Amino acid sequence: MITVEEAEQIILAQLKDYGTGTVPFEQALGRVLAEDIKADRDLPPFNRVTMDGIAIAYKAIEQGISTFNIKATQAAGEEPIGIDNTNECIEIMTGAALSSTLDTIIRYEDLEIKDGTAKLLITDIKQGQNIHQKGKDKMQVDTVAAANQLITPAIISLAASVGKARLMVKKQPRVIIISSGDELVDVADTPSDYQIRRSNNYTIKAVLSQHGLDADMLHIPDDPEITKQQIQTCLQKYDVILLSGGISMGKFDYVPQALEDLQVKKLFHKVKQRPGKPFWFGRHNNGVLVFAFPGNPVATFMCLHRYFLLWLNETLGLPSKPPIYAQLAEDFTFTPQLKYFLQVKLTFTKQGVLLAQSIEGNGSGDFANLADTDAFMELPLERNEFKQGEVFPVIKF
Amino acid sequence: MITVEEAEQIILAQLKDYGTGTVPFEQALGRVLAEDIKADRDLPPFNRVTMDGIAIAYKAIEQGISTFNIKATQAAGEEPIGIDNTNECIEIMTGAALSSTLDTIIRYEDLEIKDGTAKLLITDIKQGQNIHQKGKDKMQVDTVAAANQLITPAIISLAASVGKARLMVKKQPRVIIISSGDELVDVADTPSDYQIRRSNNYTIKAVLSQHGLDADMLHIPDDPEITKQQIQTCLQKYDVILLSGGISMGKFDYVPQALEDLQVKKLFHKVKQRPGKPFWFGRHNNGVLVFAFPGNPVATFMCLHRYFLLWLNETLGLPSKPPIYAQLAEDFTFTPQLKYFLQVKLTFTKQGVLLAQSIEGNGSGDFANLADTDAFMELPLERNEFKQGEVFPVIKF
Repeated sequence: MITVEEAEQIILAQLKDYGTGTVPFEQALGRVLAEDIKADRDLPPFNRVTMDGIAIAYKAIEQGISTFNIKATQAAGEEPIGIDNTNECIEIMTGAALSSTLDTIIRYEDLEIKDGTAKLLITDIKQGQNIHQKGKDKMQVDTVAAANQLITPAIISLAASVGKARLMVKKQPRVIIISSGDELVDVADTPSDYQIRRSNNYTIKAVLSQHGLDADMLHIPDDPEITKQQIQTCLQKYDVILLSGGISMGKFDYVPQALEDLQVKKLFHKVKQRPGKPFWFGRHNNGVLVFAFPGNPVATFMCLHRYFLLWLNETLGLPSKPPIYAQLAEDFTFTPQLKYFLQVKLTFTKQGVLLAQSIEGNGSGDFANLADTDAFMELPLERNEFKQGEVFPVIKF
Repeated sequence: MITVEEAEQIILAQLKDYGTGTVPFEQALGRVLAEDIKADRDLPPFNRVTMDGIAIAYKAIEQGISTFNIKATQAAGEEPIGIDNTNECIEIMTGAALSSTLDTIIRYEDLEIKDGTAKLLITDIKQGQNIHQKGKDKMQVDTVAAANQLITPAIISLAASVGKARLMVKKQPRVIIISSGDELVDVADTPSDYQIRRSNNYTIKAVLSQHGLDADMLHIPDDPEITKQQIQTCLQKYDVILLSGGISMGKFDYVPQALEDLQVKKLFHKVKQRPGKPFWFGRHNNGVLVFAFPGNPVATFMCLHRYFLLWLNETLGLPSKPPIYAQLAEDFTFTPQLKYFLQVKLTFTKQGVLLAQSIEGNGSGDFANLADTDAFMELPLERNEFKQGEVFPVIKF
């Protein structure tokens, strides 16, 4: 049985570039940027007025002028209007492009405007005040956002600013979520006394959608021929198959045999961890990856976050996520020789310390507790006793 | 001029219940649950086998029996098969419902199966082992997820488990994002030398979509009649109007006059904060709220997170988010008598402390830095000097 770290290494050795495509910028939220976004003009593209008021030439202040004739009024978006003499000013609005004859803005609050003149009510005036200088944020052709980062609202905004109406993004792997077994019925169906409803597939789909990935779903009945045929189709149509349950020693688990018959090579089976010990991972010759998560809902949830989302992050070329560390809020003991993923609820102390409160379920199969927790705390394999105040990494979900 | 805390109070006094509706459970991710989800059956609904192997009656162990005749094989989903004598067993699969004549599972790894018999290879056997007991997670009619919480993948999973194909969720306020001003052109258009492209509206829309809210957008040209008419329409069609820019003393800002003419009452204008000092907030008699964010992109971004998302959280009945505290990574000075929202990048130390690294822009208008930061750190109004190691609240974005 391999360790969590060995499983991670084997999975991260299977990175693949799925290519790029373009999407309208406003639909690119949550995707991975595949090109540098460059400024098409200086940002701002002109000396931009940041207060409503008047624009003057600062040398007028040096000359002792304190009342100005209003030569004209300039709205934002209009062609700049200049002055001919330093005793003139332009009444000007926020967002307007400043004429080269002007270099200082006095806001309305500091003025008395009467009979076509503006009189200064203050004396403390700095040259260049209330102007956002051309090119101060970025110069033309500067990169405003570099490739290989997640597209956030800030990136959407930058794309809009520089007129990038379409963005080149990383293509996502095509993912299918497969459930199997005649004991599982659909949510809208009424299970017999001996059946339960499918839920892991919906959990997986919801988590993936939080990460911008739209996965398909398929349920395979307990029939060896259908199982083989449907998995064969999936190996042709998808890049990744996510299975939940169905990989075990059970007599009616036809999935392992189908995978073997279809030349999906096992890269590992079983990891020194709880939950999720029977996690299976394999790869077809054509590059399709198969993550077969254990059927236990908490195990599926943990493995999805700990392994698949990590792989997805790396395969899309995103920088590795910086680790999150939290302090254990109370002592905890776990004796099996497995790395334990403890369900915890995270809060911040007023000292800025992330505190992890354990919320132990009735067993690893109790999914209900996941609704009350935020994260798994990853407790080292080598130890059995974990003390209050000790710090360990956590995986937020 | 009011403080940030006063502004927050005024805004949070304007909570409203927008009612409820039902959606298919698999589309409910990110919405707010408006009903308790109850277990329709015990969870699990039967004594559920958790390992492939054989099922026995524990009293056989007490009787010293170590080899069992395999009476039958039972798959998951099948009707339970019982035994007639303690020297019998049932070969049974993970997920199967256990007969009342059986109470203990021995996994295949601990058995030798030959000629229709199963021989125990171990002696350490506990009564009830490898069984997930009926009702252990939840009893029938227990609440598995309570109303007034965000619907996460865990909640989706619980809904699936108990057969809630549709969920009652809080209706969201209908929101429109309005930009205005002839200096702003659309992203796909080529701006003149004196124009720039609209971006704040896209930023707001992207942030709202991260919070599950689909907002409409509208751009109003610099025309008093059109402005008034379009805002009037919005006051009838929407619950919330989000404006970015256009509320100032500028001569061509027709929005303030239109709001006044249309009986939108100002509840405050200007807050002791940077960025975002000119933030305006008002309410129409019919209940429509108007958040008029300053045009500065960083100010809009901050006010959206600090005020609107806070209001949205509360108005939807969600529990208040626990505060996040971080340590300032270096000394910082800010002298104006305003509460400063410092752009920071957050990382965790190996001691579990959240560290906030300041990334100061060229000025509050520099939106480009937002792409490199995670949060605003909220520095108290009363002070000017902030020391490395001091802890303050942060707003993650």
